[in-house]
Amino acid sequence: MHNIKLTISYDGTHFSGWQKQNTPEAAPRTQRKTIQGIIEAILEKIFQKKITLIGSGRTDAGVHAVGQVANFKTEKYIQPAKLIKALNGLLPEDIVITKAEESPLDFNSRFWAKAKIYRYVIINQKVKPAFVDKWGLWIKYPLNVKLMKEEARCLVGRHDFKSFQASDKFERNSITTIKDIRIKKSKRGYDFPFLSGLELVTVEVEAKGFLYNMVRNIVGTLLEVGRDRLKKGGLKDILRKADRSSAGPCAPARGLYLIKVLYE
Amino acid sequence: MHNIKLTISYDGTHFSGWQKQNTPEAAPRTQRKTIQGIIEAILEKIFQKKITLIGSGRTDAGVHAVGQVANFKTEKYIQPAKLIKALNGLLPEDIVITKAEESPLDFNSRFWAKAKIYRYVIINQKVKPAFVDKWGLWIKYPLNVKLMKEEARCLVGRHDFKSFQASDKFERNSITTIKDIRIKKSKRGYDFPFLSGLELVTVEVEAKGFLYNMVRNIVGTLLEVGRDRLKKGGLKDILRKADRSSAGPCAPARGLYLIKVLYE
Repeated sequence: MHNIKLTISYDGTHFSGWQKQNTPEAAPRTQRKTIQGIIEAILEKIFQKKITLIGSGRTDAGVHAVGQVANFKTEKYIQPAKLIKALNGLLPEDIVITKAEESPLDFNSRFWAKAKIYRYVIINQKVKPAFVDKWGLWIKYPLNVKLMKEEARCLVGRHDFKSFQASDKFERNSITTIKDIRIKKSKRGYDFPFLSGLELVTVEVEAKGFLYNMVRNIVGTLLEVGRDRLKKGGLKDILRKADRSSAGPCAPARGLYLIKVLYE
Repeated sequence: MHNIKLTISYDGTHFSGWQKQNTPEAAPRTQRKTIQGIIEAILEKIFQKKITLIGSGRTDAGVHAVGQVANFKTEKYIQPAKLIKALNGLLPEDIVITKAEESPLDFNSRFWAKAKIYRYVIINQKVKPAFVDKWGLWIKYPLNVKLMKEEARCLVGRHDFKSFQASDKFERNSITTIKDIRIKKSKRGYDFPFLSGLELVTVEVEAKGFLYNMVRNIVGTLLEVGRDRLKKGGLKDILRKADRSSAGPCAPARGLYLIKVLYE
């Protein structure tokens, strides 16, 4: 038996998220294109056998990834380099396998994950960005990045993040640990013409566990901070309230990327 | 009367090039989506009048632009900032107007152009690039960039570029002046996740006038140089022969960008 670990990039724009949806209530599979569903189907074609692909975790509809990790077990062995070629040859162009490697038989990409890094990309400039707006959130008004950085500090550590968790009918655990938040303003002369001179603000969150919609709700609230709609210390107040309605709106999925899954 | 100069970016992937095709032999307009045709149609909607848009020159099907320039005359005046908003609101997302400005009445974006800069983007790495391959040419084998630079030098200056001009039934002028060729290898840690760590080789050509397919034919030949298929001095021999069949193949359109049109 072999346990193969895949590292996967995807442009989430045209997918209903990572997780396969095959419960009876879900819409037919053709209408709900998911990344897991597509990769599994292709693995089954290649190995001529039913394959279960275990992802490190779900990403929502429209969310991108550059370092999603998933693993599957197979009796038949195919050299990793050959497997990558076969997979990329059959996958649609918005999913790319960037790495395939054999891992210990007990490796589980979900349970072995120690932490994850998500990044939210904000294109912060007056001029409408050309072409790349499906890969980031365009914000016209200038953001006070310094204040965003200061305010964000209070989120680091173990807290009840109920204010930043999607509110739905389910009672869920809302306590987790954010290890680090890195907010960065950057202007680079990219050599890639379409991206030349884009002014970006990125919010990177590293945490052990992510609550549902947590990063997008944090970013939506940080944007309120950045446009001076919250007074100093406002973010800390929101965190303390443990009430979703006190925080800012949920930022759209298209700016969010799963960057890396960290293992020991 | 006002003469409005527009600067235009477009992702050429889904267009049949810049120039409107409305000769009787051409396919119906709906089947031949051109950038000029689309912008003119929207200008006519905005100004409620027939508008003729003069571009600095054509770009072929699939070729991109970040700095195409075009102008049109209008009696009705609309503030440039408002005009940009109206145009970008109505244009498809793969065409973006980045600048609108009033220019002297006798300005003509084609005849006033002193030179143009085109850039060809090669993604030169072993691993298949994720998502961006419609914006560049992926070359797996390592390119000898140093040799490409040395060999390219002979192209600078006034020459007969017949070897690099599309060969068709028409007899065309094949003499022009290349002012500069800049070949660059770059690896950057982009903040834009999909582009992180892409290894690029770019070929930038600045010339007074460009012959049909000249940059793509030069790049196709430089790729032969880069993979050591041509001996030293081979490019110069090809130039001297003034025979299209002696040079390398035409590189695909998707790597080519019109970067800038230079005026006095």
